[in-house]
Amino acid sequence: MQATTAKRTAKRGSAKKRALVRGEPVVRGILAAALEELASAGYRALRIEDVATRAGVNKTTVYRRWPTKEDLVRAALLSVTDEKIIPPDTGSLRGDLLAFGRAIIEIQTSPVGQSLFHVFLAEGPDSELMAIARSLRAVQEAGVRAIVEGAVARGELAPGADPMLPCELLAAYLKHKMIADRASVEEAQLARVVDVILLGVLHPERRKQG
Amino acid sequence: MQATTAKRTAKRGSAKKRALVRGEPVVRGILAAALEELASAGYRALRIEDVATRAGVNKTTVYRRWPTKEDLVRAALLSVTDEKIIPPDTGSLRGDLLAFGRAIIEIQTSPVGQSLFHVFLAEGPDSELMAIARSLRAVQEAGVRAIVEGAVARGELAPGADPMLPCELLAAYLKHKMIADRASVEEAQLARVVDVILLGVLHPERRKQG
Repeated sequence: MQATTAKRTAKRGSAKKRALVRGEPVVRGILAAALEELASAGYRALRIEDVATRAGVNKTTVYRRWPTKEDLVRAALLSVTDEKIIPPDTGSLRGDLLAFGRAIIEIQTSPVGQSLFHVFLAEGPDSELMAIARSLRAVQEAGVRAIVEGAVARGELAPGADPMLPCELLAAYLKHKMIADRASVEEAQLARVVDVILLGVLHPERRKQG
Repeated sequence: MQATTAKRTAKRGSAKKRALVRGEPVVRGILAAALEELASAGYRALRIEDVATRAGVNKTTVYRRWPTKEDLVRAALLSVTDEKIIPPDTGSLRGDLLAFGRAIIEIQTSPVGQSLFHVFLAEGPDSELMAIARSLRAVQEAGVRAIVEGAVARGELAPGADPMLPCELLAAYLKHKMIADRASVEEAQLARVVDVILLGVLHPERRKQG
């Protein structure tokens, strides 16, 4: 249990370290400009020069830190994950899942998030951009693992439950609603989905028969 | 309860009626050819002449039934839904959800399903093809409603549960896995997901605190 908590702290710690580096105003400005450029021009047409102009810095300032367009876009996408998706430790699986869901919805409904969504769909599943996004999944999953390990440490999960499933199901539902209905999920519906994941839909009297 | 069952039978009945019409060898051949053409050429490049050639019929035979490309593609996509997605009535929500999930996986892993998946992604969310797919959702939801109404009639759902959520969550998860991991879900994992939806992940002793 102690090992689990230590590991979790380490993971949230490394995200914090990245957050500190990104805290430098120049870095923050460049990453924000990169996201905006990506959202408006797409990955293929993105030029480091345009990002520099948008951020009001010399292009060598960008190249010094991120030698390639790929490096820059990876860092920009990572900044969204770090700032938004790593959820606060609310002390319960229900609270953490609600916070995780709200973070996804906040990104989905932000102007940059909306544009990025269209850019990702337009560039397609075999694009370089999608490959960069996939390469970030291990980092993004660290946030999910923090939720999971908290729930395990508090003894909240049923024995034998796949610990990644609660976050995976929730994220899949929110993304699916965005693609299928072109709309984000309201707070009341988010709570309903979280409660299905926590409690299931089966009538209490039917649980023994399952 | 009786009204529910009658409605359900009517819905499965109308699917059966469509299935009978489609049962005609010529119709079946043309719809299969249309799916194959769609999977290889995409919607924009699809020509009714090519579908006719592939099906071995005169193009007037196609035009007589489906005056436009849109009509033909709608009928072809509907034939997939009718044949595969409307699940058998297994007598339990668990059985129906497993059958529903297996049907989605079967489509996802079939050669035509794989090609269609890429065609949909390539044509994008604002394409005519996606609009046709969206227009079929009411029909597809009839299958989902049949599962739901069966579960309600058998008293399997917890009071207050959103009856559409079990199927929606399952379908979202399977589609998400296909997009994110480019892989379909194995039978054991399907059962795990169905059981989370039915029973939740929360430890039995924590349920009172929720």
